[in-house]
Amino acid sequence: MNFLEKKILSDGKVKQGNILKIDNFLNHQIDISIIRHIAYELRLRFEGSELNKILTIEASGIAIATMLGLACDVPVVFAKKGETANSTDDKYVSHAYSFTHKRMNDVFVSQPYLSRKDKVLIVDDFLADGQAVHALIDIVHQAGAEVVGVGIAVEKGQQQGGKLLREEGYWLESIAIIEEMDWQTQTIKFRGQEPMHLGQTDIS
Amino acid sequence: MNFLEKKILSDGKVKQGNILKIDNFLNHQIDISIIRHIAYELRLRFEGSELNKILTIEASGIAIATMLGLACDVPVVFAKKGETANSTDDKYVSHAYSFTHKRMNDVFVSQPYLSRKDKVLIVDDFLADGQAVHALIDIVHQAGAEVVGVGIAVEKGQQQGGKLLREEGYWLESIAIIEEMDWQTQTIKFRGQEPMHLGQTDIS
Repeated sequence: MNFLEKKILSDGKVKQGNILKIDNFLNHQIDISIIRHIAYELRLRFEGSELNKILTIEASGIAIATMLGLACDVPVVFAKKGETANSTDDKYVSHAYSFTHKRMNDVFVSQPYLSRKDKVLIVDDFLADGQAVHALIDIVHQAGAEVVGVGIAVEKGQQQGGKLLREEGYWLESIAIIEEMDWQTQTIKFRGQEPMHLGQTDIS
Repeated sequence: MNFLEKKILSDGKVKQGNILKIDNFLNHQIDISIIRHIAYELRLRFEGSELNKILTIEASGIAIATMLGLACDVPVVFAKKGETANSTDDKYVSHAYSFTHKRMNDVFVSQPYLSRKDKVLIVDDFLADGQAVHALIDIVHQAGAEVVGVGIAVEKGQQQGGKLLREEGYWLESIAIIEEMDWQTQTIKFRGQEPMHLGQTDIS
């Protein structure tokens, strides 16, 4: 069991509706040591990939992407959602359905920040249906750049995003992959492991 | 002239409508060395303040807040905008007008992530009219916590946010304060300095 699976077991909660609530350390309050550990683990897993840029999407991917940019010493770009008055450049635009906000979002990157010289590692905190990651892949391809791979903290393995990306041949690395979770019993099953109860702080 | 003023002069552009465009290194593409420098400068300016938490607002404050969390070894909380299906806790809620999106936003933090024990440094990339910072101050006070100070990368000194915060007695540190800028001549005047032309890369 790796550090992130242990952290999910000790600090996470499962909520009705197939929701894993880990906003006490990942995507609302940020535990810096965990984010740093995620970044170093992703750097290790993509060692030798010659990535020269990290791409994520606002908002909760930014912390991991920033720490990974520091670890790999490369610039970070975060795609934005929706139009903004401050951004008048030409843009690469794609679209993704947001399950959080229950609407289609435009997702865009200003053209100067991605080019055909870029070897891009896409990162995000969660992978579920893969809408956001597919929008980012579309944007990288519009720029003529290369997708080196996709680095994810928590993959919800019951949803199709990870399966699709692997079938499409992308190099996908997810640090924790959840295969099943049950809010009534507060149990979770990570890929390759037995189901475990949440709320455990003495995991070896 | 400090490192951030120099970076703005070399890489920034002034756009019509009093817009400083520095999204090539601060708030769309992120130059990790600059963000790290901003974080270390803010840590230095608030040395001795006993801060134990950093609070920012999604999205573009997150990179600086994450790097500052790393520099100070404290957790980071980012306030969210709008309601989300994944967040069912009780919340501290305030409101801020977004000039970017031209609407009022709810701004909220889940209650478990701020408490009366917290000494909070509020950070953000830009300070203009101060709506976002005042919403964050309101949230810190709702939690019974203490506002240690407000750390900003770029303050637009022509707008009232900084003036109001200083009048209210808050400890405000802005690394670059812009007093005037002109998109037609591409000049910018930082507080305490002569007007300068943008596009200069040989500033000593």
